[in-house]
Amino acid sequence: MSARRIGRRAFLVTGAAALGGAAALGGRELLDGDEQTPYGVRAGGGTAGTATVPFRGPRQAGVGTPPQSFATLVAFDLLDGVDRAALVRLMRVWTDDIERLTGGRPALSDTEPELATVPARLTVTVGFGPGFLAVARRERLRPRWLAPLPPFPIDRLRDEYSGGDLVVQVGADDEITVAHAVRVLTRQARTFARPRWVQRGFRNSPGTVPEGTTMRNLMGQVDGTRNLRPGADDDRLIWIGEQGPEWLRGGTSMVVRRIAMNLDTWDELDRSAREQVIGRRLDTGAPLTGVAEHDEPDLAATGPGGLSVIPKFAHIRRSRSDDPRQRFLRRSYNYDDPPPAGQLSNSGLVFITFQADVEAQFTPIQRRLAELDSLNDWTTPIGSAVFAVPRGCRDGEYLGQPLLED
Amino acid sequence: MSARRIGRRAFLVTGAAALGGAAALGGRELLDGDEQTPYGVRAGGGTAGTATVPFRGPRQAGVGTPPQSFATLVAFDLLDGVDRAALVRLMRVWTDDIERLTGGRPALSDTEPELATVPARLTVTVGFGPGFLAVARRERLRPRWLAPLPPFPIDRLRDEYSGGDLVVQVGADDEITVAHAVRVLTRQARTFARPRWVQRGFRNSPGTVPEGTTMRNLMGQVDGTRNLRPGADDDRLIWIGEQGPEWLRGGTSMVVRRIAMNLDTWDELDRSAREQVIGRRLDTGAPLTGVAEHDEPDLAATGPGGLSVIPKFAHIRRSRSDDPRQRFLRRSYNYDDPPPAGQLSNSGLVFITFQADVEAQFTPIQRRLAELDSLNDWTTPIGSAVFAVPRGCRDGEYLGQPLLED
Repeated sequence: MSARRIGRRAFLVTGAAALGGAAALGGRELLDGDEQTPYGVRAGGGTAGTATVPFRGPRQAGVGTPPQSFATLVAFDLLDGVDRAALVRLMRVWTDDIERLTGGRPALSDTEPELATVPARLTVTVGFGPGFLAVARRERLRPRWLAPLPPFPIDRLRDEYSGGDLVVQVGADDEITVAHAVRVLTRQARTFARPRWVQRGFRNSPGTVPEGTTMRNLMGQVDGTRNLRPGADDDRLIWIGEQGPEWLRGGTSMVVRRIAMNLDTWDELDRSAREQVIGRRLDTGAPLTGVAEHDEPDLAATGPGGLSVIPKFAHIRRSRSDDPRQRFLRRSYNYDDPPPAGQLSNSGLVFITFQADVEAQFTPIQRRLAELDSLNDWTTPIGSAVFAVPRGCRDGEYLGQPLLED
Repeated sequence: MSARRIGRRAFLVTGAAALGGAAALGGRELLDGDEQTPYGVRAGGGTAGTATVPFRGPRQAGVGTPPQSFATLVAFDLLDGVDRAALVRLMRVWTDDIERLTGGRPALSDTEPELATVPARLTVTVGFGPGFLAVARRERLRPRWLAPLPPFPIDRLRDEYSGGDLVVQVGADDEITVAHAVRVLTRQARTFARPRWVQRGFRNSPGTVPEGTTMRNLMGQVDGTRNLRPGADDDRLIWIGEQGPEWLRGGTSMVVRRIAMNLDTWDELDRSAREQVIGRRLDTGAPLTGVAEHDEPDLAATGPGGLSVIPKFAHIRRSRSDDPRQRFLRRSYNYDDPPPAGQLSNSGLVFITFQADVEAQFTPIQRRLAELDSLNDWTTPIGSAVFAVPRGCRDGEYLGQPLLED
């Protein structure tokens, strides 16, 4: 066995052969009979694993896309010596990889092409941190919000979950698909960037709950009831328009906060106390003044003793503002990692938001919550990062081209 | 807000109320119109989330059950002061919890009852390590194989993934369901035992690949082609019969090995070299002497130069024995954890096997592989544990009763 002696040349030949083999296995272009659904394109007669979300278009996928069951976020630090030309090369390679993988086809250099044949609505969303613009010598094009969030008194941030020059959000309805795409992209980037942090999250599996069910977090609450609806009237709050720098028009901003939940103390509260903390019923998710999840809360309602039905410090009261601009698209995932010694669990939320302007939309709400929110007794932000998400690729373009091209 | 002052009494009242509420939400007994499938009972008109696997029966679920998409294994160390009477209490509580949760109903003390309403084929399999029998003062009933495996030269075992007095294997087609069940069982056990290690794994999501597709591991190989078939002619190799101690008849043994994969060096091999290492084609999973995945390998076949078509050191050659008893049921899961600094990935297999007798079936094969197997250059066992899995519960019984009762 001289397996270890096989060199680069054989590898390249293999890569091409592998591609052919995998195409026969399932890599494919869209065909007649494919079904276009709000959840992606599903092959005629295929399984949920064959569904794809188009990559090319005015906007990157993975923002307005209905959340897939799984997401892994990888933030990278750029290596010393990387310059703008290197970033262009990385973005060209990633663009090609992402286009292939999201279409259910292996990447050109894919060493596990068989793992690429179940796209399962795979999307890859790429974002740039402040360091990316610095390395690209494009700091003059940096929007003011592309910087670490201001410190909040509730924060207990850890370096291991914060910052990053570059991020990929990889989402799919199958974890093998996610793991494979993460591996391909990380390996391709290895001469340009090293992983800084990795966060994996999950929601319900495909098909286990009725479509349109709001996710529950591991505290048991419905999480995400009052959310922006991409494609509806709130689009200007999500996507950057004329007010942003030209290279970001059609793009957005991404905030990633890692929110640890103290389930042990939370579980000491009874249900009524927990409902007061949130301002919603735990069973239906209805506001304490309503009967159904999507009922508008009556913040002015008072009970027999003259006290507010939705308490002054309740999360749903504190998380809304009179300013209609102070909203954002949430696209969060649960995490549940092995507990450190002496603890029963290590759970929380990978809280991901998209908004046209972090400073105008996200920060004021976060400031209100940091100031006063009953939920703060049981949740702690332990990670924080902000990225600019460039617009999608037109035909022939690569990701970030409007920023990087001369 | 005096939420933190709500005491134990209110909590208990809440627990009962919560149960009622959750029953209305989805907790249910089996009904007319439910569909019995090889993958569990699925509610008439319900989603894949409503499918249940019966808990009571001669054998524990989660062994012969077709593998669910996700599994979390938690091994526990028993606390000082725990005795046989305490173990009986823990097993009584767990038995009730598991019966409810696997039926889609909250546990009696469930503080997040809404998270219990998507059973998604939930099973919980309980196993006892050597320390459990010692604490129960039942060492004279210990089968010889209930001990750490002999050391193998390839092992690089870490304490953090090895051993344990007690284990639960929690499997379901939804990760929120798994996380909730793990949380309930861990919390219930907290005065008896503390978590020693937690291992989470995944396969394809429900419905993303056709039924009967063999899982691929993160090296890209089909993994588990030549497996025992529960319910078929191999049952005596899986379940303990007359030859075992009376308390274990109808039970089995469980070996958990954590196998790290070095994907970085694996990816340096070309496909042909990798196929030689395994003895199978990567695309179809067929042996190198065949055309389809389930073709019987021709180990005697030679090629033009007189060399074996399936190399002498190939994994599929080394992993089979002439002794028909040296087989076991594999029920493995992929893992893909955040990489440590300086590495691109941290992936592998939670390799789980069930067999009537570890010494007669598992150990000889592991010894053959440790001696010589091309795959050893890219895989490393970093965790190891052995458990006795008692038989299932008859009506009115609790788990482990034949071992623990006076």
